[in-house]
Amino acid sequence: MTPNSPVDRADLRNRVTKAIDVVLARQRPRLDAVSPDLGPVADALSDFLLDSGKRLRPAFAYWGWRGAGGADSDEVVAAVACLEWLQACALIHDDVMDRSDTRRGAPAVHRRFASLHRAQGWRGDPETFGHSAAILLGDLCLIWADETYNTSGLPTDALLRGQPVYDEMRTELMAGQYLDLLEQALGGSSTERALRVATYKSAKYTIERPLHLGAALAGAPPALAQAYSAYGLPLGEAFQLRDDALGVFGDPAATGKPAGDDLREGKRTVLISLALERANPGQAAAIRQHLGDPHLSSASVDLLRQVIEETGARTHSERLISERTEQALLGLDAAEIDSLSRAVLRDLAAAATARTG
Amino acid sequence: MTPNSPVDRADLRNRVTKAIDVVLARQRPRLDAVSPDLGPVADALSDFLLDSGKRLRPAFAYWGWRGAGGADSDEVVAAVACLEWLQACALIHDDVMDRSDTRRGAPAVHRRFASLHRAQGWRGDPETFGHSAAILLGDLCLIWADETYNTSGLPTDALLRGQPVYDEMRTELMAGQYLDLLEQALGGSSTERALRVATYKSAKYTIERPLHLGAALAGAPPALAQAYSAYGLPLGEAFQLRDDALGVFGDPAATGKPAGDDLREGKRTVLISLALERANPGQAAAIRQHLGDPHLSSASVDLLRQVIEETGARTHSERLISERTEQALLGLDAAEIDSLSRAVLRDLAAAATARTG
Repeated sequence: MTPNSPVDRADLRNRVTKAIDVVLARQRPRLDAVSPDLGPVADALSDFLLDSGKRLRPAFAYWGWRGAGGADSDEVVAAVACLEWLQACALIHDDVMDRSDTRRGAPAVHRRFASLHRAQGWRGDPETFGHSAAILLGDLCLIWADETYNTSGLPTDALLRGQPVYDEMRTELMAGQYLDLLEQALGGSSTERALRVATYKSAKYTIERPLHLGAALAGAPPALAQAYSAYGLPLGEAFQLRDDALGVFGDPAATGKPAGDDLREGKRTVLISLALERANPGQAAAIRQHLGDPHLSSASVDLLRQVIEETGARTHSERLISERTEQALLGLDAAEIDSLSRAVLRDLAAAATARTG
Repeated sequence: MTPNSPVDRADLRNRVTKAIDVVLARQRPRLDAVSPDLGPVADALSDFLLDSGKRLRPAFAYWGWRGAGGADSDEVVAAVACLEWLQACALIHDDVMDRSDTRRGAPAVHRRFASLHRAQGWRGDPETFGHSAAILLGDLCLIWADETYNTSGLPTDALLRGQPVYDEMRTELMAGQYLDLLEQALGGSSTERALRVATYKSAKYTIERPLHLGAALAGAPPALAQAYSAYGLPLGEAFQLRDDALGVFGDPAATGKPAGDDLREGKRTVLISLALERANPGQAAAIRQHLGDPHLSSASVDLLRQVIEETGARTHSERLISERTEQALLGLDAAEIDSLSRAVLRDLAAAATARTG
């Protein structure tokens, strides 16, 4: 790949995957040197990280760098691959917290280790073992995210510029995750609060901060970071609203999660708060009765879907997605970046909001 | 404090605490800017980090630096304070995994958030909320460990030299934690395997790697790192053996953990494996019957203590502690370091192995 040559999305995805594989190839012998008993740890992380993730966060960071005038290089791809490790930590720990059984169409990491425990006939409770192993594997991902960034080969001054952004985004992610827990515990129905969770847990973390990271690595002026926010924040909200819709109405074959998974988990999403705000007493009672029931039948999933439709929340949410995406594209138009980066970021906006999985 | 002036242990402890407080003071407004609902997160971490921890790991790292010829500075103290954040992550996650209720004489972090949930009458299961919050707080500690290191003010070239050691020690810690889980699941009774867990989970992580970190920060030659290993590895084993003994025979007022906590949790320590190796059939049956019973009565704790005593395991373990400590001190004598560092490291060896809590 010559510097500044066009890079299409699938190609960038493959290069990120290759960068992840380099880290895995370095860690595996390290774990093996500690003990061959760590084989299942390396295998689980390898399966989790090398699967068909969309690599959206590295893509935004990469194009944040390119838009700031950074040249294409394997080093910058390696640096932004850290975001996939961070995301792996978030997902693995999230699945423990939500007691989710499935991730990306495969058993969640904690389920995988519970099954290993059961298959080997080990002592104690398989579920507890699974949860504990998943906590440690998530920790390893967080540590290796860091190592990925530091060993990317980018010049030290670039890495030092990016570090505060990287630090801030990690703290915001965990803060957003806590607020998400809290919303569920409060049984919140305020759209304003649900939007705040979406902003920190997802909008900033998935789009705005990765763009900022790329810009900081490239040494861009503050004005570009502001332009990226004008694009990234509304797009991030649209991304999360799409996520909410897929969690309720999505096709399991595309989402890799069971149908209506968010309903079973009782997620207090913006979609749900919109539904509760618009519901008549009967609809509200139906939502409150079924939402968060871990044993929700598929008939009840269908019923809840219908109620949410009937409140008009789905239509309203789709309108919000369109509006936010449009707002993001206006922000993008105003950004002073080259035409290739602009075109790819326009394309990524569609990928983030019009997706089915 | 003038460069190279003597620093006594209590003084260094206070300086580490001050460095931790600086990080907390920076993070609190950040969390508050996300949402005032994050107040309990900041409070819990503040209480956990500012309590009376022994600050052993920063002390070993600091004297690893001084022994390598590094001058005293607030910057190096700030850098090695990262080890307290890393340890906080390990302890908070460990208490979730072990379902431990108490840490340092106070409720474990997951218990604290379960109590908050209960007191507020929130929805869902308080224990699940507590576990989830503790997972996220541990993650924050791991992230802030990193930020502590990077923002310490040490020159970049020093930090770059230390980074690979820091990376390796974090991976080893999590690997050791997984092996510890596995030993409990296997119900292992092999002293060799228990020692391997102790090596990674504790000996390297508590003593050898902190010394290596200090040496690397100071740019010491490989020979010094080897000398530190000759001191640090046996001392680390002695440290863990003391920990094992305190987990069974320790005074709750000094350990901050209930009497016989390790017995209730079924920890497969070196002490237990020594007891099982030496036990007659009756003694072995008594150990296997009671070990890991979460509802172990204090009478049964006393019985188990007596059985462990009678097998001779405690005496043997004390002999191992003496031998390893002596071996460590011989290693220290051979290290080419200044006399002050040697004296303090000798003193720290006693603190690590003769402690009561």
